[in-house]
Amino acid sequence: MYNAPIRDMLFVMKELAGLEDIAALPGFEDANLETAQAVLEESARFCGEVLAPLNVEGDRNPSSWRDGKVTATPGFADAFRQFAEGGWQGVQHPIDYEGQGLPKLIATPCVEMLNASNLSFALCPLLTDGAIEALLTAGTEEQKQAYVPKLISGEWTGTMNLTEPQAGSDLALVRTRAEPTGDGAYRIFGTKIFITWGEHDMAKNIAHLVLARTPGAPEGVKGISLFIVPKFLVNADGSLGERNDVHCVSIEHKLGIKASPTAVLQFGDHGGALGHLIGEENRGLEYMFIMMNAARFAVGLQGVSVSDRAYQQAVAYAKERVQSRPVDGSAKQSVAIIQHPDVRRMLSTMRGLTEASRALAYVAAAHCDIAHRHPDEAKRAEHQAIYEFLVPIVKGWSTELSIDVTSLGVQVHGGMGFIEETGAAQYYRDARILPIYEGTTAIQANDLIGRKTVRDGGAVAKALLAGIAQTVEQLGQQQGSAFASMQRHLAQGQRSLEAAVHFVVENTRRDPNAVFAGSVPYLKLAGIVLGGWQMARALLVAAQKQADDPSFYGAKIATAQFFAEHVLSQASAFEAAIVSAKGGEGVLALSEDQF
Amino acid sequence: MYNAPIRDMLFVMKELAGLEDIAALPGFEDANLETAQAVLEESARFCGEVLAPLNVEGDRNPSSWRDGKVTATPGFADAFRQFAEGGWQGVQHPIDYEGQGLPKLIATPCVEMLNASNLSFALCPLLTDGAIEALLTAGTEEQKQAYVPKLISGEWTGTMNLTEPQAGSDLALVRTRAEPTGDGAYRIFGTKIFITWGEHDMAKNIAHLVLARTPGAPEGVKGISLFIVPKFLVNADGSLGERNDVHCVSIEHKLGIKASPTAVLQFGDHGGALGHLIGEENRGLEYMFIMMNAARFAVGLQGVSVSDRAYQQAVAYAKERVQSRPVDGSAKQSVAIIQHPDVRRMLSTMRGLTEASRALAYVAAAHCDIAHRHPDEAKRAEHQAIYEFLVPIVKGWSTELSIDVTSLGVQVHGGMGFIEETGAAQYYRDARILPIYEGTTAIQANDLIGRKTVRDGGAVAKALLAGIAQTVEQLGQQQGSAFASMQRHLAQGQRSLEAAVHFVVENTRRDPNAVFAGSVPYLKLAGIVLGGWQMARALLVAAQKQADDPSFYGAKIATAQFFAEHVLSQASAFEAAIVSAKGGEGVLALSEDQF
Repeated sequence: MYNAPIRDMLFVMKELAGLEDIAALPGFEDANLETAQAVLEESARFCGEVLAPLNVEGDRNPSSWRDGKVTATPGFADAFRQFAEGGWQGVQHPIDYEGQGLPKLIATPCVEMLNASNLSFALCPLLTDGAIEALLTAGTEEQKQAYVPKLISGEWTGTMNLTEPQAGSDLALVRTRAEPTGDGAYRIFGTKIFITWGEHDMAKNIAHLVLARTPGAPEGVKGISLFIVPKFLVNADGSLGERNDVHCVSIEHKLGIKASPTAVLQFGDHGGALGHLIGEENRGLEYMFIMMNAARFAVGLQGVSVSDRAYQQAVAYAKERVQSRPVDGSAKQSVAIIQHPDVRRMLSTMRGLTEASRALAYVAAAHCDIAHRHPDEAKRAEHQAIYEFLVPIVKGWSTELSIDVTSLGVQVHGGMGFIEETGAAQYYRDARILPIYEGTTAIQANDLIGRKTVRDGGAVAKALLAGIAQTVEQLGQQQGSAFASMQRHLAQGQRSLEAAVHFVVENTRRDPNAVFAGSVPYLKLAGIVLGGWQMARALLVAAQKQADDPSFYGAKIATAQFFAEHVLSQASAFEAAIVSAKGGEGVLALSEDQF
Repeated sequence: MYNAPIRDMLFVMKELAGLEDIAALPGFEDANLETAQAVLEESARFCGEVLAPLNVEGDRNPSSWRDGKVTATPGFADAFRQFAEGGWQGVQHPIDYEGQGLPKLIATPCVEMLNASNLSFALCPLLTDGAIEALLTAGTEEQKQAYVPKLISGEWTGTMNLTEPQAGSDLALVRTRAEPTGDGAYRIFGTKIFITWGEHDMAKNIAHLVLARTPGAPEGVKGISLFIVPKFLVNADGSLGERNDVHCVSIEHKLGIKASPTAVLQFGDHGGALGHLIGEENRGLEYMFIMMNAARFAVGLQGVSVSDRAYQQAVAYAKERVQSRPVDGSAKQSVAIIQHPDVRRMLSTMRGLTEASRALAYVAAAHCDIAHRHPDEAKRAEHQAIYEFLVPIVKGWSTELSIDVTSLGVQVHGGMGFIEETGAAQYYRDARILPIYEGTTAIQANDLIGRKTVRDGGAVAKALLAGIAQTVEQLGQQQGSAFASMQRHLAQGQRSLEAAVHFVVENTRRDPNAVFAGSVPYLKLAGIVLGGWQMARALLVAAQKQADDPSFYGAKIATAQFFAEHVLSQASAFEAAIVSAKGGEGVLALSEDQF
């Protein structure tokens, strides 16, 4: 069962991400709270009723491969038809191409619901979004017209083809070849692995976006071009032509997200797969990065989603399971385990991490909207920079914490959690891919350090730190233990992050190993401090509105205090692992055979 | 592949756990370094060659149930025969019952190897050890003679039957009945679940130790008695008689440890399962606790084991997998990923946690040996108290960290880690049960607080803290960055743990909820500080001996420094979660429906 937390989502959208400011941007005039609420309610209904029940089914009865054809889990194709008919693929895409043109801030909770209800299913639209982004960024108008409306309507789906057996994180090693046919097209030859929804029976066609090298292209990442290679060729009138020479030779046997087929695609074993260049030659990686930013944000949201789903199931179990008397002797009988302090600690940890990562993601989505629509160019650039700073954190932090959250979800269930039929274990298995695909956490951390912190001398980071300092000040003006705890730990978090930013800016060029040995701690520190900042902002709002709804706002206050004491309190440990460790000298100095 | 880290094990045994002192105890005269080394080498050979290759097989081809019979994974029965013939079940059991009578300190690395090579397989001897302990503690001489030699020889195996559907952590809810037959025996009726190796085809008989209530027994845990219920009745001459009325009605479909059958056992559906009382009526829980202490220690060791196995596989992959150029520009070509700082951080985290948890477990084993064999009663009591203080930490901390370690093991493999054939995912799945069975981490933490810290007014904890303070002082007399880091973080850890002990002792009776809301952080804090203390002691030894073997001791120094900066540095965060949080007030105050 999955109940979308609409009220929490609207709270974040309105109070933390500034939905009203977004609705004031040109083109988003209809994106007010009423619209948002209506869209979220409709999305919640579809995800809760149609997709959520299929989640377990997908785990028990994964996509299957036979003779090059992949059959999705029973029920998935029908659900995808309903998804397409509901217009859900187009929520944030342009009206010009038959999308709904809504802000990313409104699309984001819809995508969260999609993933929370069914992570495997949601990956198909996630990759299609990426293909749409790439085409809108770099495609010709003809390419856009030919593909984008079909992708938005759900008639076709999209994929991203980057990885090869020897080229995982390291795209410089890509070997797939693209040979010009002479009439403007290319024939593609090579093997791509780990292609999510790379083959399936849910849509009439699949648009593969493929990284490959043209003859004579420079070595390394500067010689990679982007191609669109449809499963079925597309005739001039938009109808489908011949089957293209791209074939699924197998799918993987995975730890989780089993309903989502992970394909090995063979291009060109029968003469070459016909493809077309997207944008300019040798600029493929750059275009791919644009769609990857969107995909990385979306994977971060997957972390929020699976965390929330695991939390919901753990809470339901904890309210139902009766075991042991209370430690304070307040009852002579065994009570529901939610009464036990450690179960509360676990649930509160799950809840706090989920809420903080959600808030950070939604705030990032709002920056993205402003970056696209604000009339003032300087404002656009400013918000674009903040969005880009936040993307690796949303991706890296939200997915890393989803492992902890889903692990706690198993733990709350005790022995039953280890039994597959209970369902808690599925989230634990599913979540494990999230810190890996679309760039591992280390890759996100490298991006955060190199492109996002060092390149501008820490300017964006420092602007955010200044904002946090203001919030710390506001907290200091309030009374009560929640404010006191949050003020103390957010202030320490701000100082720790400041020290880390300073260390990174000062040392990355001089001693890159020392900095990169602390790269993931730096990303996690940024996550807990920026996420904690959102919890602090929520606390300030909740305290003010508490009388309107003591239960809802009271829970926000308690969760913020808990987050400060149990999560933000780790800031100085991360600081130690980055700054004082200086790259753990000794460990870097060890020879390979000392491991 | 599994290579037992014999040298690391001997280092801990000799330098940290005081093997020479153990060999000086009465009855352990042969337990010197040479004996230890010989036993470890033989154990390593058996585990590496026979058990390790079956580990993957057990995951792919789990134990199976049909018509009440359970068939173990192909190869397991033969491996168990070899295990039995090698005398491995008897390493630490008394010579009087045909065991080898070696110290627990020598048995412990053997058990680590057993679990590292094959966690599912090792569970069968683990439970048999528990049955042996219970019989030796509370059985009559006749019972001991009838069962213990058969269990030690591996002709029979043993189980522990505690859990029932309504009685998991809460044994007060046990309902299984034991009705006197009039001739000194009992007929047992009831359902037990989660019975590890509760039915199988690897041995001729299974001795089930069962918690049940006699007619008119007091309610709650004070009315539980312990019975021995063999699968086949045992004739007076030791030969096997009729099949007893205990039947396996199903086995569970689990996240991990799939080769180990987790049985639902039905007692008495056909007239009653014949059993005999062990010890006195209504003292079952007390006896069970004795065997549980041993079992909890052993499960803690399972955490060490699976961590080490995951580490070994991750290191091998990291040395082999070539991907990306070094961040410091030191090579123009892509390099093995072990060259990348974040991969080193991950491997060093895995290694540091594994070494620290191993050291703590072995040190605990030595205290157990002294507690059993020291001629001075006061000494025995002193070491028994330390051992009992350490058991919940070894169990809780080593198993919790095994989740992090096995998760990092997956991460090091990148996308390949998520593919089941790679093998890294199995450790991640297998490890997940460890913080649950034999008492969840919360149960361990309650034990650590209630019986181990509050009952003696923190006396044992304070004695250990004084030892740590001495080590901090010794560190301060040395030069160099490893010593400086360790001194700084161990000193802080000592202060944090001291504050936490003080808080626990002062507040548990007055405000139990506030203390128990920080119970697991308290256990984890104790783990990192006591584990860190062992790393500090290892550092002091390694620095002194470095010239003898710069590679081995240099790695110990680097790992200790890393542990200080990346793990011990978390101490103040745990302190905050325990002491300043004061039970997270708000979270405890929330009503159920606010979750």
